[in-house]
Amino acid sequence: MALQILDPMSVKVRPAERDEPDDDHFHDQCGVFGVYGHTESANMAYLGLHALQHRGQESAGIVTSDGAQLYAHRSMGLVHDCFDAQSLSRLPGHIAIGHVRYSTAGASHIKNAQPLAVNYELGAMAVCHNGNFTNAEAIRISLERNGSIFQSDSDTEVLVHLVAASRETTLVARITDALKQVQGAYSLLFLTEDTIVAVRDPMGIRPLCLGILPGSKDAHVLASEPVAFDLMGAEYVRDVEPGEMLVIDRSGLRSLRPLAPEVPHFCVFEYVYFARPDSQIGGRPVYEVRKALGKQLAIEQPVEADVVIAVPDSGVPSAIGYSAQLQIPFELGLIRSHYVGRTFIEPQQSIRHFGVRLKLNPVRPALAGKRVVVIDDSIVRGTTSRKIVKMLRDAGAREVHLRISSPPTQWPCYYGIDTPTRSELIASNHSIEEIARYVTADSLGYLSFEGMLNAAAGNSEGIGVCHACFSGRYAIPLSEGVVPARRQLRLVGV
Amino acid sequence: MALQILDPMSVKVRPAERDEPDDDHFHDQCGVFGVYGHTESANMAYLGLHALQHRGQESAGIVTSDGAQLYAHRSMGLVHDCFDAQSLSRLPGHIAIGHVRYSTAGASHIKNAQPLAVNYELGAMAVCHNGNFTNAEAIRISLERNGSIFQSDSDTEVLVHLVAASRETTLVARITDALKQVQGAYSLLFLTEDTIVAVRDPMGIRPLCLGILPGSKDAHVLASEPVAFDLMGAEYVRDVEPGEMLVIDRSGLRSLRPLAPEVPHFCVFEYVYFARPDSQIGGRPVYEVRKALGKQLAIEQPVEADVVIAVPDSGVPSAIGYSAQLQIPFELGLIRSHYVGRTFIEPQQSIRHFGVRLKLNPVRPALAGKRVVVIDDSIVRGTTSRKIVKMLRDAGAREVHLRISSPPTQWPCYYGIDTPTRSELIASNHSIEEIARYVTADSLGYLSFEGMLNAAAGNSEGIGVCHACFSGRYAIPLSEGVVPARRQLRLVGV
Amino acid sequence: MALQILDPMSVKVRPAERDEPDDDHFHDQCGVFGVYGHTESANMAYLGLHALQHRGQESAGIVTSDGAQLYAHRSMGLVHDCFDAQSLSRLPGHIAIGHVRYSTAGASHIKNAQPLAVNYELGAMAVCHNGNFTNAEAIRISLERNGSIFQSDSDTEVLVHLVAASRETTLVARITDALKQVQGAYSLLFLTEDTIVAVRDPMGIRPLCLGILPGSKDAHVLASEPVAFDLMGAEYVRDVEPGEMLVIDRSGLRSLRPLAPEVPHFCVFEYVYFARPDSQIGGRPVYEVRKALGKQLAIEQPVEADVVIAVPDSGVPSAIGYSAQLQIPFELGLIRSHYVGRTFIEPQQSIRHFGVRLKLNPVRPALAGKRVVVIDDSIVRGTTSRKIVKMLRDAGAREVHLRISSPPTQWPCYYGIDTPTRSELIASNHSIEEIARYVTADSLGYLSFEGMLNAAAGNSEGIGVCHACFSGRYAIPLSEGVVPARRQLRLVGV
Amino acid sequence: MALQILDPMSVKVRPAERDEPDDDHFHDQCGVFGVYGHTESANMAYLGLHALQHRGQESAGIVTSDGAQLYAHRSMGLVHDCFDAQSLSRLPGHIAIGHVRYSTAGASHIKNAQPLAVNYELGAMAVCHNGNFTNAEAIRISLERNGSIFQSDSDTEVLVHLVAASRETTLVARITDALKQVQGAYSLLFLTEDTIVAVRDPMGIRPLCLGILPGSKDAHVLASEPVAFDLMGAEYVRDVEPGEMLVIDRSGLRSLRPLAPEVPHFCVFEYVYFARPDSQIGGRPVYEVRKALGKQLAIEQPVEADVVIAVPDSGVPSAIGYSAQLQIPFELGLIRSHYVGRTFIEPQQSIRHFGVRLKLNPVRPALAGKRVVVIDDSIVRGTTSRKIVKMLRDAGAREVHLRISSPPTQWPCYYGIDTPTRSELIASNHSIEEIARYVTADSLGYLSFEGMLNAAAGNSEGIGVCHACFSGRYAIPLSEGVVPARRQLRLVGV
Repeated sequence: MALQILDPMSVKVRPAERDEPDDDHFHDQCGVFGVYGHTESANMAYLGLHALQHRGQESAGIVTSDGAQLYAHRSMGLVHDCFDAQSLSRLPGHIAIGHVRYSTAGASHIKNAQPLAVNYELGAMAVCHNGNFTNAEAIRISLERNGSIFQSDSDTEVLVHLVAASRETTLVARITDALKQVQGAYSLLFLTEDTIVAVRDPMGIRPLCLGILPGSKDAHVLASEPVAFDLMGAEYVRDVEPGEMLVIDRSGLRSLRPLAPEVPHFCVFEYVYFARPDSQIGGRPVYEVRKALGKQLAIEQPVEADVVIAVPDSGVPSAIGYSAQLQIPFELGLIRSHYVGRTFIEPQQSIRHFGVRLKLNPVRPALAGKRVVVIDDSIVRGTTSRKIVKMLRDAGAREVHLRISSPPTQWPCYYGIDTPTRSELIASNHSIEEIARYVTADSLGYLSFEGMLNAAAGNSEGIGVCHACFSGRYAIPLSEGVVPARRQLRLVGV
Repeated sequence: MALQILDPMSVKVRPAERDEPDDDHFHDQCGVFGVYGHTESANMAYLGLHALQHRGQESAGIVTSDGAQLYAHRSMGLVHDCFDAQSLSRLPGHIAIGHVRYSTAGASHIKNAQPLAVNYELGAMAVCHNGNFTNAEAIRISLERNGSIFQSDSDTEVLVHLVAASRETTLVARITDALKQVQGAYSLLFLTEDTIVAVRDPMGIRPLCLGILPGSKDAHVLASEPVAFDLMGAEYVRDVEPGEMLVIDRSGLRSLRPLAPEVPHFCVFEYVYFARPDSQIGGRPVYEVRKALGKQLAIEQPVEADVVIAVPDSGVPSAIGYSAQLQIPFELGLIRSHYVGRTFIEPQQSIRHFGVRLKLNPVRPALAGKRVVVIDDSIVRGTTSRKIVKMLRDAGAREVHLRISSPPTQWPCYYGIDTPTRSELIASNHSIEEIARYVTADSLGYLSFEGMLNAAAGNSEGIGVCHACFSGRYAIPLSEGVVPARRQLRLVGV
Repeated sequence: MALQILDPMSVKVRPAERDEPDDDHFHDQCGVFGVYGHTESANMAYLGLHALQHRGQESAGIVTSDGAQLYAHRSMGLVHDCFDAQSLSRLPGHIAIGHVRYSTAGASHIKNAQPLAVNYELGAMAVCHNGNFTNAEAIRISLERNGSIFQSDSDTEVLVHLVAASRETTLVARITDALKQVQGAYSLLFLTEDTIVAVRDPMGIRPLCLGILPGSKDAHVLASEPVAFDLMGAEYVRDVEPGEMLVIDRSGLRSLRPLAPEVPHFCVFEYVYFARPDSQIGGRPVYEVRKALGKQLAIEQPVEADVVIAVPDSGVPSAIGYSAQLQIPFELGLIRSHYVGRTFIEPQQSIRHFGVRLKLNPVRPALAGKRVVVIDDSIVRGTTSRKIVKMLRDAGAREVHLRISSPPTQWPCYYGIDTPTRSELIASNHSIEEIARYVTADSLGYLSFEGMLNAAAGNSEGIGVCHACFSGRYAIPLSEGVVPARRQLRLVGV
Repeated sequence: MALQILDPMSVKVRPAERDEPDDDHFHDQCGVFGVYGHTESANMAYLGLHALQHRGQESAGIVTSDGAQLYAHRSMGLVHDCFDAQSLSRLPGHIAIGHVRYSTAGASHIKNAQPLAVNYELGAMAVCHNGNFTNAEAIRISLERNGSIFQSDSDTEVLVHLVAASRETTLVARITDALKQVQGAYSLLFLTEDTIVAVRDPMGIRPLCLGILPGSKDAHVLASEPVAFDLMGAEYVRDVEPGEMLVIDRSGLRSLRPLAPEVPHFCVFEYVYFARPDSQIGGRPVYEVRKALGKQLAIEQPVEADVVIAVPDSGVPSAIGYSAQLQIPFELGLIRSHYVGRTFIEPQQSIRHFGVRLKLNPVRPALAGKRVVVIDDSIVRGTTSRKIVKMLRDAGAREVHLRISSPPTQWPCYYGIDTPTRSELIASNHSIEEIARYVTADSLGYLSFEGMLNAAAGNSEGIGVCHACFSGRYAIPLSEGVVPARRQLRLVGV
């Protein structure tokens, strides 16, 4: 698929580079964490969310229970900004769930921060959710017709309403009742005064795993990724299975199967980009998968070059694999700043938007006069890749060959990942040649679909994984073939 | 009713003065403000709420509409702390409602801050409320049985659910439908994308008035007290009448009468204590009523004394009236600090709780060696009066005669005023002699019930006013004779 | 001196009312507080500064010593905003001095906040100062020529340099050495690791008094006004005498007289305006002096009227005296808001600057249709008086007669009070008739110079008091007849 | 030097691991930045400091001049936390200097934040400093004897006093006069109303370089490292030479040589650890030097292993060099969190201090069952290395061989790097065998002194570099052989 570009400028550049969205990556919806049976449950949740911070940087929240009452704290920002000793001390109890949420450009949306916590007929309930309900809007309209009031535009609130409105008499029955009405991807944690309920959708699209705290058989932890267990010294037990519901209360842990089983479709993009490289997902170490993607990419898209570099951090393991396969030296060609906050004041007269240059800086001696292969995990809009290529050339690279450790991303995700619309995905309406010209690379090569599946799923047919963002073959049929619209709510602010 | 105390110490003093609640006054629930038709509606609301700050110091909030969308900002604290130039600039639009809420000792309850704003079937809606629904808890239980979810423990949220659940098709019809199901006292402002609806309960228990902004026939303002109009130069038009509903939208102002009329029962305590002295309520200037209360108190409870002083600020007009009637000089015997914030750090080894001494300080030369009459508007628990009497004696007062410009407060209010339970109201279970001994005054005299009614209502039967806190004769019968309990919600925090 | 105004509009009004400075009062430089021998010295200082808050609202600071080291905390804002439990807990030790500073319109000037604390040859030293050195600028230039560096534009820093540069070997000798080089008004508190030194200038222009904490002979307190002792239960002992130096350390309290005695000149304006009405200054209760000023004003400037009202808070005692003398009823014609913070957001399209209207509101029933005498303590620029007169007329006053309980303020103060320049003092370049016309009062009357002196100083010659702001007869001759200029420092910010 | 450890536990472990300082690296004193001739000088300084953030995370400050006045803002924290749009907008002018300062464990020391800015005889002056004056304390004592007052415990303030006290009449002459009295390492930037002066000490111990902004011959920039120029698009011109003084004002740039020339001694540790890998220092790319250090380390200290990993970020280039030399695969064995803030709340019952585990996490698949070589740049106390070795073993590493890309660090730095005392430097009082046992590595190998010098200085004698921290041969003789003590100031707080 790689090809030499003859005229790098013949692809029309979009007008104002300054206004282009700069972050060229997808955003995950969130990460979830739960703990049952630790006297410092809020502190445990804080540690867990810290380790899951990469899954969402917009807001963080924890709700605890002391057996009689729920205590909530949610705030905009990173985990270590949202919580301090005082706010954690106001979250007593031995049960907790927590949530980190992805970063958006918009204004403060504290109402969308999770865990969502409400009072309903049976008492109080808090919920946190990683994923997306594809039929939420239809249910919301129907609920509103029956008089329901919505505080947020979150699809999670729809589920809470369904639980509250269920005629069943137990929490488990009500949750089951509600889940039967929704479609989509979800890893959910429910908290009541005395119980945690964890559920993973029947296809297991989003990850969720179970661990145990040292020194107790009954102190369970739940998290989107097992890295959340490391800091607190908890031990990974197993993944929650697709369609499984775990109920943890005073009588211990029970596993239920309230939902009809379906063919598993684990999100392949967790391997490609989202999960931490030190995580394991679905029993497979992410680092190994990424190295394998890099090796396969080297086999499919080799190039004569002097150095292999990565777009840090997500591209590093694939670059190491690529380098090893072709025996081209791996170098630190780009470094990533540790000090990029959420806001950065740019000079008014600046002729260009800083964007990615605040995060990445080239290391000239690794690049100058060299033929450079740069490995990234994916291309979304192409604007960041374009800036990176320019940055490498400005630093003296003689040739810049861009290699992507996944196939072209052509389709939006409706299962919990914040993707742009199809029209914004450069690969959905441009050929690889056009993309290469747009990003001004000397050559561009994507990993093949089959190559990715072999490395990530262990088979070339895509069995067991959801690959809709690459293939357009959606695991869950969208109702009437229509893209689920996010309704424009009429209320802004706190 | 006044009597000389023989043994001021024979009433058993409650054990630890340190732990006694110190603020001896009732708290009003809140103040409301609305504006329709001004390009700087949020700024107008800010000014209005500033003028109504005395009605609530716990939280403040404003919701605006630009015709298409609602914008909300609510925060804990005083109006000038809750809002700054930035937060006001994020509240665009020509329509606004705002709210100030009373101060409580407890933790931060931002969820109870108003205006409450939600999304429902017809769009977005915000509500603010001064008053209390006496049957809210019963309705809440019934709504929860039908699946409703509650975010707060506010009775206002119950009303919002009723509006959302109504089968009527217009906002006005839905509000009417909802109001027919609730009982209690209320001055309400509703805001939607294009409309303000103001309603006052059929008895007119809580105040609400209408004004007009200069330079426009259509720019209307609404407020709990007309003093809210002064800063912005708006003109007082009239009180909203008991049971009246005003609808203000693009087609102007309409007055509706959706509720069956009842005998008016305006809260007499607004005259005695709550309203600002520069306000007028029900067409009567508060200052004049308070002076009349003081004059009548002088007629009923005269005392030979050298000076008349007031407990500032609420006691000043009555003290002036008392002084004028008996021709005893009025002096500034107590001054009130302008610098008392919400928190004050006390020395750990302090032998006494500072309490009222942070707010009030005696002016020795006005007191030393003198027989002092001190005028206050009411006695709640007696602890503050006790401290004031001690403070005056320590400053050299030879005699301290306490005169109260209202009858003994013996009954809790269920119509929007935060009163302690009966057992905490000292007058509900102690004789005047006992109270006098407890507060250690040389004599204590209350205004008679009839005296108060004559001065405040213009008749001695209490026609037109609610006087339940003095008489126990509640204007709205409590369902099944049961005191409406505030349900303990299970969820705390943000 | 009172006269009827024929044409209230014939005095040219200054162009844009919007831009006129609104606060028509002088600002005191500051208040000081010290404590020696209490384990919670920082908390004591906090209480003392709270009581002295009226003397300065711009910044507050406390420096403590635990015998070995000094601990400092200074901040912009009111005392209860500057300090919380945490910041107080970081100020250990049994010795403390504290300071409140006046409010200015400008930006944050934390560098000018006091106590000033430095390291010098003998260790660490902190100083706080109420007053002004009239020859500070000359000394500063000379010090700079010798290489001194200045951090602030405070004249106090000049003194600190003189102490540091002295060749004497003890603190007391160095302070004496330094004080012999400065001229002006000062009440000073010095703190070192183990000592407090208090000094009052030889004329005793600014106040300073000594108290003792209960339960210990050795726990001394010092404050600008004795009201600072009330909250902590300390007992007033006596004023520090003009020219006296008190040294408090492990060996107890010593009184020294290092400076040549001079004729006392206590600031008469403390009686007229600055001190709290519940204070006593120079052994005389402020409240009594102010009532006497009001009585004398009534004798000199009577008027036929229906009511006497005060501009709160400072005008109240004089108004009570005026009312009593003429037997015209005293009424609450203006109320003052408790909720005015340092910043207030005004609507952009507002046609007028809110200014004094945020602080004061008229009480219509006390004014409407009445002939009103309004008592204020002084007129600075005239703009506030003008707004108050307009406010009273708008509230329905038939006539408005302004009476001032002091003579015309014509001269700036160089001894510690923040006055405008002569050209801004309306009385220094306008006749009383012109002022009356400018403020649009029906009549205007000032207290006579002799009348003030009799009431405030007990003699008509002004013996014992400084009255330079009224008479231009400065107690301390200004060097070469030149007004001491405040040098424009070249450095702004923190 | 490497050796197999027989009994990893026979070195006595210091008692409480919990209390051990965790960050095992030196702290650089600071980074400096200056700009002359750009209308947005404060924004330029902000960009420059952002790029120099790695040189100091405790505080940041900028002082600007508009030609007539200086404007300062300094604050504790990271650059993007210290400055926002508002604070930058309050720093007008076309000249600016800025400073970042290292992180300490202690309380807030805003007084030590730079640039230091003062008023002195010639006007205002601000200074920022990277380095350390070795005779500062002696000068301070002498200055204090002459009456100088010190605000901070910074040695920079000593220099400012010398400039202020100089009898010379021009700024340049005064600075020269002052510099002749001090000894030590310094890269200094002075700012006055209209001038920037940059000076580098005669040995050039600390770095400083000059750049030019695009579009103007006169818009100069100065920075500790040329990476500070990248974001703003400035071009690196050259290093400021040892002993050179640059004066930039309206008449352009002048180079002066006011100080006697000395043999250059550039800090070798900038290559080893401090400088950013994408920087160049003394004309040599840091990345290349580090790779060369790694290659030489591989030659001197080879080991049979399966993988080479780095302690990120500083160890990465050396690890790549080591890996390339021995042809052992480089892997991502440790990842570093981007989300570690300054404070982190740890559970109270936690059995261990988190320390380095918050920053680093092992990547199990890269380690499990493998013989691992881990490359770090240096060992300070050994506690972090110990934790890293344990972390790698817990992740399954079969063997852990620690290789250090510099010789043992045995001597404190007195030239601007915050090192612990000798007794805390593990290599100053332990053999390599003991250190290896303490850190529990299977083997430990340091780079040889000559090896480091060859790679970093291009010669094995150490000509041109300061290597005192490795050799104890101090470039500047310490006065009387005494270690310069940091005087304990007696004043704490703001």
